Amino acid sequence: MTRVGIIGIGHGQFGRRSDATVQELAFEAYREALQDGLVDPKDIDGSVIGSVPEYHKQRSLPGVVQEYLNLNPRPTWLTEVACASGSAAIRTGWMAIRSGAHRLMAVIGCQKMTELTTPEILALMGRVGEVQWESIFGTTFPAYYALFAKSHMHEYGTTREQLLQVAVKNHYYGSKNPNALFQKEITLEKALASEPVSDPFQVYDCCANADGAACVILASEDVAKKSSKPVVWLDGMGCATSSMSVLRRPDLLGLPSAVKASQDAYEMAGVRAEDIKVAEVHDCFTIAEIMAYEDLGFCRKGKGGQFIEDKQSYIGGLIPVNVDGGLKSKGHPIGATGVSMTVEIVKQLREEAGERQVANAGIGLTHNVGGIGQYCFVQVLKRD
Amino acid sequence: MTRVGIIGIGHGQFGRRSDATVQELAFEAYREALQDGLVDPKDIDGSVIGSVPEYHKQRSLPGVVQEYLNLNPRPTWLTEVACASGSAAIRTGWMAIRSGAHRLMAVIGCQKMTELTTPEILALMGRVGEVQWESIFGTTFPAYYALFAKSHMHEYGTTREQLLQVAVKNHYYGSKNPNALFQKEITLEKALASEPVSDPFQVYDCCANADGAACVILASEDVAKKSSKPVVWLDGMGCATSSMSVLRRPDLLGLPSAVKASQDAYEMAGVRAEDIKVAEVHDCFTIAEIMAYEDLGFCRKGKGGQFIEDKQSYIGGLIPVNVDGGLKSKGHPIGATGVSMTVEIVKQLREEAGERQVANAGIGLTHNVGGIGQYCFVQVLKRD
Repeated sequence: MTRVGIIGIGHGQFGRRSDATVQELAFEAYREALQDGLVDPKDIDGSVIGSVPEYHKQRSLPGVVQEYLNLNPRPTWLTEVACASGSAAIRTGWMAIRSGAHRLMAVIGCQKMTELTTPEILALMGRVGEVQWESIFGTTFPAYYALFAKSHMHEYGTTREQLLQVAVKNHYYGSKNPNALFQKEITLEKALASEPVSDPFQVYDCCANADGAACVILASEDVAKKSSKPVVWLDGMGCATSSMSVLRRPDLLGLPSAVKASQDAYEMAGVRAEDIKVAEVHDCFTIAEIMAYEDLGFCRKGKGGQFIEDKQSYIGGLIPVNVDGGLKSKGHPIGATGVSMTVEIVKQLREEAGERQVANAGIGLTHNVGGIGQYCFVQVLKRD
Repeated sequence: MTRVGIIGIGHGQFGRRSDATVQELAFEAYREALQDGLVDPKDIDGSVIGSVPEYHKQRSLPGVVQEYLNLNPRPTWLTEVACASGSAAIRTGWMAIRSGAHRLMAVIGCQKMTELTTPEILALMGRVGEVQWESIFGTTFPAYYALFAKSHMHEYGTTREQLLQVAVKNHYYGSKNPNALFQKEITLEKALASEPVSDPFQVYDCCANADGAACVILASEDVAKKSSKPVVWLDGMGCATSSMSVLRRPDLLGLPSAVKASQDAYEMAGVRAEDIKVAEVHDCFTIAEIMAYEDLGFCRKGKGGQFIEDKQSYIGGLIPVNVDGGLKSKGHPIGATGVSMTVEIVKQLREEAGERQVANAGIGLTHNVGGIGQYCFVQVLKRD
């Protein structure tokens, strides 16, 4: 079975992009990826779109993107699993190439969130929780993750300060990322003084909605080996699910889907957690990054708060995490986020990450969560 | 590369299913497919959902279906390309198995349409047309296909009677399908007297919204060969796209995506159009079936009206088409339709189709269109 390599990457500006339609955002990232990989668009034999349809006035996004990218009559499809749609798109693209059906594909995560108002978005997102027994009682997304935060604080003594240290770190690195929505540092004091959202969360515990797109060009091994760029390989592809209803989970201290997906990805790639040199994890809320440290095996269960307090997820620490700013600082255009993570890891593995470069980052990881852990996709990426 | 076989099929009742949630519809079809193929659910290593999310109160369908089917923590994802979402799900499942990532998957097309009102559905569907320049001016789906009908009538002399003969045929066969929404024959006179919808269409030119689900169990060659049921193989998998904007098409006389997808599927399967013994085509409107005859090479361009007038698409004719009633008579639960087509072809190839059985149906075809031909998926299926 062929290995699948990434030979081109593109990433647009995340933020309120009233200057561009969703297909224009997709094109921006696609064009950059073609230029990056010196890929002739005539050789692209299909595309996969990671996006959640219902945020756009224009529905059935693959069609409008495919036309705008001048890729007709080649195949396209959309993959959706809520906020993990970007990684799901990469996984179906990876399978498409391994299956022999495709050799060179564009995978594009793209999302406009700002065509809707924030209350509309909150209502739509709540419906990604279980509708019949949960979200109907008012559990918006911040409320869901707040339950996890409260549990973690209660069980392991995780503190408000530790939670918000995640935000401080991610804003620090976001200040070095020109594509991030928020490019400014914050202090712990400022974060602790921010407005309440859903107890225990304050504003700085939560990532922000944004418009944005990112693109990776996937190639079969024979095609990738002809690339002029260093190839980054998708060698571990984990994907797992947890129950839709969080009430049916054993506890609210972590995401079983993340544990399983990472174990599968490590096994496929033949690595262990301690081999990972740089990681992008799904910090939709501060608690989510702390749980990710634990679920991915970066630290022991319950020690995630200490891990950030000890700056182990900073550059120079055990495993640098979200050194592009994470969802917290980049913003979270839901369909684009997973692809954005992969783009950053490719940059890191190619040593093109500038002042946020992690030294000797030969093996990287992405961890992209859909819903409240209903889905988790973990990739282990390696450079030759 | 492994062949991919279908070893189990399930199909629920199509119609107004106020008795069931969308996950219950999915389960109904899944359970039947497991029982049909004598498959132990413990062996299912993932699922793919074909559905269009925005018609349901519950969003992120794979999660709620996966839990209801008791398939956590195994992978799942949703594939969406408008009304071809079911076939796109089968194609990503086929790739998943060929890629080695999966060996035995449930592919489920499921959709509730009746949680919304008809005007809401019309508005949502219109947005599957190009929003910026087309649907904003009022082109609902009947209006789009009416443009094709008018063009075909003008260019080839196709008549109202020929168009409505498609409806007469599909209602005739639907009367023999216990899962169909409309199980009653109609006469040409009745169809010609029905209410106008969008010139030249009357009510009987149009398929109806419905709730419904269908399921196929896909297996790798080694797994399939142990099946107790006759295996039907997915040997030709075509997928192609046409421009989102119909204004950018060369003409409105057929769907370029259908021509390309069928050529690719024939080539992959090593067959020609005349080898097809039974076909399921996307008759969302009467003109769509007539164009399909031509696009698939069942008759020459412009002769589709004559093809139905001569009853060549009836059992006993050149190539029986939609002998389960088609979208017209079964109803069109958009995400389920493509999977429903595949289920019918499997039944035909296994010779389990009862009084609508086509004799010696060793090779079958499905043709599933998304949008107004933005996408077309064509499968060629063979029995050993």
